[in-house]
Amino acid sequence: MISDKMRPLVENNSVIRAMFEEGARRKALYGEENVYDFSLGNPNVPAPPAVKQAILDILEEMDPVTVHGYMSNAGFPGTRKAVADSLNRRFGTHFRMENIIMTVGAASGLNVALKTLLNPGDEVLTFAPYFVEYGNYVRNYDGVLVVVPPNTETFQPNLEAFEKLVSPKTRAVIINTPHNPTGVIYSEEILKALADILEQKQREYGAPIFLISDEPYRELAYGDAVAPYVTKYYANTIVGYSFSKSLSMPGERIGYLVIPDELEDAENVIQAAVIATRVACGVNAPSLMQLVIERCIDEKCDVKYYERNRDALYGSLTALGFECVKPQGAFYLWMKSPVPDEKAFVAKAAEYNILFVPGSSFACPGYVRLAYCVSFETILRSLPAFSKLADDYFA
Amino acid sequence: MISDKMRPLVENNSVIRAMFEEGARRKALYGEENVYDFSLGNPNVPAPPAVKQAILDILEEMDPVTVHGYMSNAGFPGTRKAVADSLNRRFGTHFRMENIIMTVGAASGLNVALKTLLNPGDEVLTFAPYFVEYGNYVRNYDGVLVVVPPNTETFQPNLEAFEKLVSPKTRAVIINTPHNPTGVIYSEEILKALADILEQKQREYGAPIFLISDEPYRELAYGDAVAPYVTKYYANTIVGYSFSKSLSMPGERIGYLVIPDELEDAENVIQAAVIATRVACGVNAPSLMQLVIERCIDEKCDVKYYERNRDALYGSLTALGFECVKPQGAFYLWMKSPVPDEKAFVAKAAEYNILFVPGSSFACPGYVRLAYCVSFETILRSLPAFSKLADDYFA
Repeated sequence: MISDKMRPLVENNSVIRAMFEEGARRKALYGEENVYDFSLGNPNVPAPPAVKQAILDILEEMDPVTVHGYMSNAGFPGTRKAVADSLNRRFGTHFRMENIIMTVGAASGLNVALKTLLNPGDEVLTFAPYFVEYGNYVRNYDGVLVVVPPNTETFQPNLEAFEKLVSPKTRAVIINTPHNPTGVIYSEEILKALADILEQKQREYGAPIFLISDEPYRELAYGDAVAPYVTKYYANTIVGYSFSKSLSMPGERIGYLVIPDELEDAENVIQAAVIATRVACGVNAPSLMQLVIERCIDEKCDVKYYERNRDALYGSLTALGFECVKPQGAFYLWMKSPVPDEKAFVAKAAEYNILFVPGSSFACPGYVRLAYCVSFETILRSLPAFSKLADDYFA
Repeated sequence: MISDKMRPLVENNSVIRAMFEEGARRKALYGEENVYDFSLGNPNVPAPPAVKQAILDILEEMDPVTVHGYMSNAGFPGTRKAVADSLNRRFGTHFRMENIIMTVGAASGLNVALKTLLNPGDEVLTFAPYFVEYGNYVRNYDGVLVVVPPNTETFQPNLEAFEKLVSPKTRAVIINTPHNPTGVIYSEEILKALADILEQKQREYGAPIFLISDEPYRELAYGDAVAPYVTKYYANTIVGYSFSKSLSMPGERIGYLVIPDELEDAENVIQAAVIATRVACGVNAPSLMQLVIERCIDEKCDVKYYERNRDALYGSLTALGFECVKPQGAFYLWMKSPVPDEKAFVAKAAEYNILFVPGSSFACPGYVRLAYCVSFETILRSLPAFSKLADDYFA
């Protein structure tokens, strides 16, 4: 009864569901605290207290007709201005409120960008490993996702392979930094080289290629690591942002798109993106949360909590003999499977009640992803199980 | 630079924008209180106090990781159960929580339903006059909107014309009751007759035809008027609901779909709809507002306020000689233009600073729509201007 396009999604979904059900079964059998679930990217650090305070203040100070009411589909002017000002302060950019469109999270932001730009058959490139929903978002608009094979040395974008895959059909490129699933932050050097290739291809084909930078993990950068701001390197960049991780509110569905004036035909693209938001992506971002963002724009969740998790997990797993990419940001650890078939490794780990996701779910078999947005105690308790798992391979 | 599908939307948008700009110009020129703006369906009645109290209680009682966190893409179980239970109490239905999918407002709900059901070229029927976004929603999935001409006697669905337009290509029918822009509530008799036609056509074609009932105005019914619950008359019904009007929170983007067990292949359709929500329509409905709904499911905004507006506006305008459909529900007054070209009538009214929308925007020229979700004082102050307008035509 369902549409042809939805059918493969439903079929694929039962695989994911089977994984969740196996996790639920183990938790019921062995007790929640004895299953070490690293499969989901659901933040466990609470929203900063300023979020609660902002909600209380807004409800006290403002008229409910405004707080819960319609605004321009692009969002409240005050919120858009607060976002633009904050970006300008932090990154030396020159955005105006008109460059900011509030969206129903980053997922809707990417959908808005792709609906605005793609014609059927247009190709969108992305770098493996990648967040599997990109393919679904691109197919929503009859685009074709073209996957660039990984650079398994650094997990920075593989630009040699990329250059060969760019073609006159290439309409957009999606990057994600800090990166899910590898925890890598794309370096300034790589971004510049990527921009150079795109500039050259644009000239060669006489048509724009848009760079869509998906940045829900921007604020989760550890130590001195900073994710360079992509619009500074390439004019035809659209940034998709979400407050899901920075303010620990993934359920609230609040984010924004940045469409800079430097982008080709910017005014038209902005107008189309606002309309795409209205007709296909939720009408507007949720109003109360927009007002919260205006007041909490420079707040952050406790990033140190994730950093401590990273240090404990990365340190322990490498000490046990596992080969891991040291995460610079986000809250994922990317680990090489000790055997070529990483699904066998995932199954073996599950025997010790350790749950994580096979790399083939990110178009990069031979690796696995551990989401360490769990409690520190979960990590500590999991280590004896990891030790037994290591013994199976390295002892 | 924008996609072919977005181009006509951007072009059409400038017409709407021109109308808004003319309104803004007049407000700047003559003062906000001297412009009588009946053009927008933005509720002016505040959310019931229980909404604020629910937010305060939730923030006090619950863990922020839960309040603002991801849940199942279909929504919090407690919220879905509260919705199902409330519908069952009120309408004698037998929904389970599994039949309810929380959505980012009714606009996303309709998008989810259409994405789940439509293949390219499938036809979706709706009855003129109709909410213009239906066409955009249907075209998002390459469907074709087929408009049934109005019954200008009653503005109930024109079933004779409808029966002739149903074809083997018909995949779905969208109805809206209480109705924007006419204020009509579809009668039980009409719904039964509509269901009979659909049952017969399903048998004839050996394929299901889905009835999508768009119900953001369900709670806005005046006097004894009750909108019959559509799933009781036709098994292949999907209901799209929004709390935008019932709780005066259109900016919050919170609503739900009802997909009953009686619907053909219900389990598969429900699963597909949840996935469509995830990949294209915002991932999930906003979390805090879902929790508010659980606690405020039987709350309503002050419907009496709108009823008083209706009585004043309908009473006065008919007394002045205008021909109007008496609204049974929603907050729109549907008025016959005293001249065949209703756009000329709209322009003439604007000279008296009265703003409303031409019926051709709803595929029904010769009529105009007045949104009376304004303050009662605005209605009172507008009456001398309406009187002058009447003199131009009837004096």
